Amino acid sequence: MKLGSLRSRESRDGVLCVVSRDLKRAVRATGVAPSLREAIESWSVAEPRLREIAQRLENGSVAGEFAVDQKEFHSPLPRAFQWADGSAFLHHVKLVRMARKAEMPPSFYHDPLMYQGGSDDFLAPTDPIPQVDFAHGTDFEGEVAVVTTDVPIGISPEAALKHIALVMVVNDVSLRGLIPEELAKGFGFFQSKPQSAFAPFAVTPDELGSAWRDGRVHLPLNVTFNGGFFGNADAGAMHFHFGQLIAHVARTRTLGAGSIIGSGTVSNEDPSRGSSCLAERRMIEQIGSGEAKTPFMKVGDRVQMEMLNEQGQSLFGAIDQVVEKAKV
Amino acid sequence: MKLGSLRSRESRDGVLCVVSRDLKRAVRATGVAPSLREAIESWSVAEPRLREIAQRLENGSVAGEFAVDQKEFHSPLPRAFQWADGSAFLHHVKLVRMARKAEMPPSFYHDPLMYQGGSDDFLAPTDPIPQVDFAHGTDFEGEVAVVTTDVPIGISPEAALKHIALVMVVNDVSLRGLIPEELAKGFGFFQSKPQSAFAPFAVTPDELGSAWRDGRVHLPLNVTFNGGFFGNADAGAMHFHFGQLIAHVARTRTLGAGSIIGSGTVSNEDPSRGSSCLAERRMIEQIGSGEAKTPFMKVGDRVQMEMLNEQGQSLFGAIDQVVEKAKV
Repeated sequence: MKLGSLRSRESRDGVLCVVSRDLKRAVRATGVAPSLREAIESWSVAEPRLREIAQRLENGSVAGEFAVDQKEFHSPLPRAFQWADGSAFLHHVKLVRMARKAEMPPSFYHDPLMYQGGSDDFLAPTDPIPQVDFAHGTDFEGEVAVVTTDVPIGISPEAALKHIALVMVVNDVSLRGLIPEELAKGFGFFQSKPQSAFAPFAVTPDELGSAWRDGRVHLPLNVTFNGGFFGNADAGAMHFHFGQLIAHVARTRTLGAGSIIGSGTVSNEDPSRGSSCLAERRMIEQIGSGEAKTPFMKVGDRVQMEMLNEQGQSLFGAIDQVVEKAKV
Repeated sequence: MKLGSLRSRESRDGVLCVVSRDLKRAVRATGVAPSLREAIESWSVAEPRLREIAQRLENGSVAGEFAVDQKEFHSPLPRAFQWADGSAFLHHVKLVRMARKAEMPPSFYHDPLMYQGGSDDFLAPTDPIPQVDFAHGTDFEGEVAVVTTDVPIGISPEAALKHIALVMVVNDVSLRGLIPEELAKGFGFFQSKPQSAFAPFAVTPDELGSAWRDGRVHLPLNVTFNGGFFGNADAGAMHFHFGQLIAHVARTRTLGAGSIIGSGTVSNEDPSRGSSCLAERRMIEQIGSGEAKTPFMKVGDRVQMEMLNEQGQSLFGAIDQVVEKAKV
């Protein structure tokens, strides 16, 4: 089942829609819940009803279907009460550290690195990325994320997998120029992690078929920068699976339904797979030639992200964002 | 005007109520908005209507009023899309650093220290504090917080003050035993900052009279630990005012309506004012005698927080929490 949220002037959460498998047709599902956020909050009731609508949409037997224009869709959750992002691709972490000649701490192999993100106002998948200052070092980060139902405190990684309701693709926008100073203060990211954007459609794990296994999405994430290939790294290369990330977050607290848990930047050791963020390409340049040549994003630069299934069909729709001068 | 949210099995956001100035009587205000969260999201429309109800409640001319039992109230926002907490009392920061013989970085005097908190599932003001393990070092932190309307990117500190809709008191529960290892990983707090709890009533700044000035609440925060005096530090001693904290958070992004911005632990230089968290008392002990003697919270320990106005009346109602073994 695939779900989306139409942009709406009336609701900050958007309007819940069921979307056809081929992403061409959709139907409002506000009879089940006004928004995807609210559907997730009563998932055991909402899910079977939404699946019934999805079945009828595939059969062509539902009233009110309309043609999908991805630009009309917001992020599936235009805002969320919880957005916790991991850094589960250790190759990415290794590169960051290699670039500054730092060893990888042994704990990083068994203790996930995660940060608390802000989630009050996500960008839509085709919204411009606002840039206050080029010196802030605007970067994209291609990631996979899951949406959970209510998670109890102290859950095990295996039990946590059963709380995954939906899978999404995310561009975790990062301001690289602000990160060193902010992390040096010791309290983590804030200004350096502005609003993220998500691909327009959230899908249930069964939509991924055999590509969803071991708590991971075993498919490449296609990233295009200014129209050219940038990366197609395998998202299945996560060192920690999503159940481990959820269990990490829930070690000392519950998680409310609709919590979003991110994988961190998708990253593979094979250099032919490219990268999912500019910082990684810059690190590879620096390790190779002593100098990072690729600049961070400037006004007008465009990033696109999309994940295809094994048959080459788009699973989540596309993130397609251009950097724009912020209206300050 | 004072507002509260009745606990509800039907709504995760609670039921919006207007509360009398003396905190003795209340009336449901669901005709204006189902919840306080939703009222804040259309504050320009909701506020005047709520003020009219508040006026009628004071006059005794409203239908449906009931006697307040603070135990029936959740935190005013049982969950929020944004909870950003500062550390604006530099005396607290200085003590932390003195205890480990570290200098105060000069930037700390002009660049606020803030972290991104989790906000999907706050505790109610009289809920137990779940403890997974005594070794985690459970602590309370008494703070003041504000709730904002929508804040544009790049706002100035002075303009930000106009976006403050409500003031609250918060117990920012912290797990001191997990903080050093978590901060050493570089990505900030996560497991070490479990669910916070808020005093039952949120109030508009005008309720504070002359105590609300310069973007600060110039009143003591009374903290009681196991029934005895623990602190009554002046919350007006914030180095940064709330407009500065909001502007810091909004430097590179918008803030959605209903965002909560915290002051950090209230802390004064005058030792007779006590402390608002155990860690501070421990640091004072360590600086004085070389040894921190006061243990962190164990199961059964009780913390209460309340702020009175200049006439000795409770402004926000009371936080009253006991540590309980978590049901894992």
